[in-house]
Amino acid sequence: MLTRSTMSKASPSWPDLAGRIDGNRHILPVRVYFEDTDFSGLVYHASYVRFCERGRSDYVRLLGIHHSDLAAPGGDQEPATFVVRSISVDFLKPARIDDILEVITECIEIGGATLTLHQEIWLGTVCLIKADVRVVLISQSGKPLRLGDKVRAAFERSKTPH
Amino acid sequence: MLTRSTMSKASPSWPDLAGRIDGNRHILPVRVYFEDTDFSGLVYHASYVRFCERGRSDYVRLLGIHHSDLAAPGGDQEPATFVVRSISVDFLKPARIDDILEVITECIEIGGATLTLHQEIWLGTVCLIKADVRVVLISQSGKPLRLGDKVRAAFERSKTPH
Amino acid sequence: MLTRSTMSKASPSWPDLAGRIDGNRHILPVRVYFEDTDFSGLVYHASYVRFCERGRSDYVRLLGIHHSDLAAPGGDQEPATFVVRSISVDFLKPARIDDILEVITECIEIGGATLTLHQEIWLGTVCLIKADVRVVLISQSGKPLRLGDKVRAAFERSKTPH
Amino acid sequence: MLTRSTMSKASPSWPDLAGRIDGNRHILPVRVYFEDTDFSGLVYHASYVRFCERGRSDYVRLLGIHHSDLAAPGGDQEPATFVVRSISVDFLKPARIDDILEVITECIEIGGATLTLHQEIWLGTVCLIKADVRVVLISQSGKPLRLGDKVRAAFERSKTPH
Repeated sequence: MLTRSTMSKASPSWPDLAGRIDGNRHILPVRVYFEDTDFSGLVYHASYVRFCERGRSDYVRLLGIHHSDLAAPGGDQEPATFVVRSISVDFLKPARIDDILEVITECIEIGGATLTLHQEIWLGTVCLIKADVRVVLISQSGKPLRLGDKVRAAFERSKTPH
Repeated sequence: MLTRSTMSKASPSWPDLAGRIDGNRHILPVRVYFEDTDFSGLVYHASYVRFCERGRSDYVRLLGIHHSDLAAPGGDQEPATFVVRSISVDFLKPARIDDILEVITECIEIGGATLTLHQEIWLGTVCLIKADVRVVLISQSGKPLRLGDKVRAAFERSKTPH
Repeated sequence: MLTRSTMSKASPSWPDLAGRIDGNRHILPVRVYFEDTDFSGLVYHASYVRFCERGRSDYVRLLGIHHSDLAAPGGDQEPATFVVRSISVDFLKPARIDDILEVITECIEIGGATLTLHQEIWLGTVCLIKADVRVVLISQSGKPLRLGDKVRAAFERSKTPH
Repeated sequence: MLTRSTMSKASPSWPDLAGRIDGNRHILPVRVYFEDTDFSGLVYHASYVRFCERGRSDYVRLLGIHHSDLAAPGGDQEPATFVVRSISVDFLKPARIDDILEVITECIEIGGATLTLHQEIWLGTVCLIKADVRVVLISQSGKPLRLGDKVRAAFERSKTPH
């Protein structure tokens, strides 16, 4: 979920490429291509895990969080990145080639170094997948880093009240 | 490059999801995500091959060619699909995480059962990749099938004069 | 996790290609290649999900369960397959390019139509990943199917007592 | 095709994991899993491109070429890596789930900074894929680097006379 500052906004030519923020939720459209399916005729289960990562990346992008914002406060500016600590996914219904899916992402908990996100993938009015994902901000060397104020504020504003 | 008739048009909510036809060319925007990169820090070379397939799929989709149009004329309606017979790719420049790429596809030759497509992937004003791809229409059982009139006409209208 | 009867055994030339059964556990070696890593320099999180699926496929293969064994008893022989109903993964430590990982799979619960598997991925003496995976046997049309006697017996023999 | 010196040899427990050198050729067995197929029921075309990369990685590994050997001679030891400059692939016959494929790699030309490799993928006695791949050694900053003496000698010894 790193973002390069030069690319952190949607391209002017392709306005929806990073999806949209809608209230507390981020919505990303994802087309199912050949590469996402398997010989069962359905979407391969790990493809949904990739789709969720795309949703999280674009959610962070549209929150305006840049790579440089992720470095620990205090100025040492060690490069930092979010890594996935745990995922839990329920596969409810299958998707198929050519389907247009929507990956919905919301932040449900903000810890010292961690975020918990709830994600769902929908096909029209049908929910296909529900996932809970915990990510942690770590330094290059693998040490958990406290979320900086700007990052924390961006997620707090976007967080779904529970 | 199969298309389901129910999904063969761009979604009304996400108008650019299948890219755009621009003259004789189809243009598809592709965002680079974590999944597309490798530990070198750059995009993994086979990811460009996947991106080209997405471009071809959406080009066929926007030409209005449906799965049912691919069945052999004469009405036996054996399910048919395009498969890749050969690819030749020059990798000129690398792409990186968060880049917005444009996959450009044009048809340069129409044979009895085959199409030859030229594809390029650009980052802004820089060409990263050039590819020539030959696809062949085959039946379920693997037999090459002559392109039907509707399919042939759609590609003829779109074909780049050489 | 379908197996073709013609390929259900390890190849004579490559004896360990499907890993080994060791007591109640199946062990599959997996090399980390370029394709499995991302630009962080580490293995991409969804790659471990793919590695777990390889482990399950080869576990079923070495249990001697063939595709034809999966069809519902009673002889209607509707093609059946295992699909993933849920996964829960803890990512403890990262893997890197060139690492040789071992995917360990054991069956911990056998239901009417479902199996619950516990999987771990190790690098030498370090556990990188723990996963619980529930799979369900379904018919072509998506209906859950009761596990047949031969399949049930194979998993019962292999099941880890809890 | 980087190799970590600590992992550059086959694991003692899994002797064939990196395949085998057989005369001038390297042979790597590859099992087809769910992840490699698509909804057509066959192996997805870009999966073969990944399989070829695995073959090249293990060929370099079994030639005994370590990451540290790739740095330019003269001792500045700038990290170097092979990148793919071009590929050309003919897809002759399809593979299917559970198939055991053999990826065969040989070096057919050694240039100043480049290697040209011929690769084929076989299923039993049937050739499915033929590919020519040109790789170039580049520095971290993207500059082509002359192959060092040790690397050149290893490929010269292994090169197929033409």
